[in-house]
Amino acid sequence: MTAVDFAAFVDRLADASGEAILPFFRTALSVEDKRSSRGFDPVTAADKAAESVMRELIRRTFPRHGVVGEEFDDVATDAEYVWVLDPIDGTKSFILGLPVWGTLIGLTRNGSPCYGMMHQPFIGEKFFGDGRSASYRGRNGPRRLRARACAGLEDAMLMSTTPTMFDEGERSSFDRVAGSVRQMRWGGDCYAYAMLAAGHLDLVVEADLKPFDITALIPIVQGAGGIVTTWDGQPATNGGRIIAAGDKRVHEAAMELLARG
Amino acid sequence: MTAVDFAAFVDRLADASGEAILPFFRTALSVEDKRSSRGFDPVTAADKAAESVMRELIRRTFPRHGVVGEEFDDVATDAEYVWVLDPIDGTKSFILGLPVWGTLIGLTRNGSPCYGMMHQPFIGEKFFGDGRSASYRGRNGPRRLRARACAGLEDAMLMSTTPTMFDEGERSSFDRVAGSVRQMRWGGDCYAYAMLAAGHLDLVVEADLKPFDITALIPIVQGAGGIVTTWDGQPATNGGRIIAAGDKRVHEAAMELLARG
Repeated sequence: MTAVDFAAFVDRLADASGEAILPFFRTALSVEDKRSSRGFDPVTAADKAAESVMRELIRRTFPRHGVVGEEFDDVATDAEYVWVLDPIDGTKSFILGLPVWGTLIGLTRNGSPCYGMMHQPFIGEKFFGDGRSASYRGRNGPRRLRARACAGLEDAMLMSTTPTMFDEGERSSFDRVAGSVRQMRWGGDCYAYAMLAAGHLDLVVEADLKPFDITALIPIVQGAGGIVTTWDGQPATNGGRIIAAGDKRVHEAAMELLARG
Repeated sequence: MTAVDFAAFVDRLADASGEAILPFFRTALSVEDKRSSRGFDPVTAADKAAESVMRELIRRTFPRHGVVGEEFDDVATDAEYVWVLDPIDGTKSFILGLPVWGTLIGLTRNGSPCYGMMHQPFIGEKFFGDGRSASYRGRNGPRRLRARACAGLEDAMLMSTTPTMFDEGERSSFDRVAGSVRQMRWGGDCYAYAMLAAGHLDLVVEADLKPFDITALIPIVQGAGGIVTTWDGQPATNGGRIIAAGDKRVHEAAMELLARG
């Protein structure tokens, strides 16, 4: 069974998790509601509901597969195939009602990411790839994802989720890169990687990522012709300090600036 | 003719501008493409196309009305009714492919905002109001917009578009507010005001806004029961330093912190 065979199943996982999440999105809860409802938190509720439904589908369909997720205990992490799930990547956007969060569904084979999807169920768009190619389905119509060429940092557009993800030393490394690019914007979460794969920006530099924040995105970025590694060029699968670029010239130049210090 | 009668016409303006804009959204242009296409800029092209189509509809339907917009010269700004247009509020998001920009269509009568709409044509959602009530149409289903209650800054969630909108003095005023709230997030543009009207956040504090950045949003925020003024409590119509809050206790507390210094 090759990775390609999982595409239809990942679609089912994405659709089922989207149905579980949407009833909790833009549920207006005032601060006073929150106080009186004994800590009811719509993001955590949505996260748990979506991860449960995905885990159940995986257990029934592929009982030997492992699962790693944000909300529940790891299962069979030494299996040949392990699913890596993050039902809501971008919880801060979710809480504020902004539709720039996504559901991340990754699959690793013998520890290497072999398929990944980022799904935004409110907008209704899916970004997915297997490391060799990457595609989009949604409002823009079905199409291939291709990262764009960019000759160097001075032409690059950079995104990073939030300054609070960096410690002091990481922040000064990041600032060297941010000071060298054409334009920089905070925010994005998984959308930054999806838009890099779609050819709308050139560079993402982050830190403090969990494996489930990045695993699903690796085969999408790589399938679109981009590069994603740790700041020192190692595989990105374990999270931590991550750099993604659409063009290897930008990746190399940014890695060099990050390494100085 | 009361402001309510303009609702159907504003819908037409929004639909026509959305059709003009969408062909330019997520048009992948590499940096190299941009260099060779002699400065072709998809945001400016979309902005101009959308503003032209709206101006033409207004001219044909209400030839005596004035128009103020970002891309073309002001028309009859001393008319009883003046339209205030910003086809793409959130150009940085637009460029990066993130669907958190919006089309702002405002109408003033004798200088006071009497109707406004924020339209996101890619997602397909409209937020609109006339100062007395505000409503939503889109993926969430039709519903009334209501700002939420929030007892004080310590419970408030704050959004602001970008640190670069503040000068040094404004930034230290802003930081006093940001340091007093429960949570703060950069980004948002018009979506910050729409989400405040929808009850998902409590406070927006910005500076350096143009009249067309805020006019359309005033009747939406006010119609949802929120408050929007300048930092010193004056009408927000002329732009500049703007504060919006869902609850007057938060508005007062934030104004007091902004005035210190």
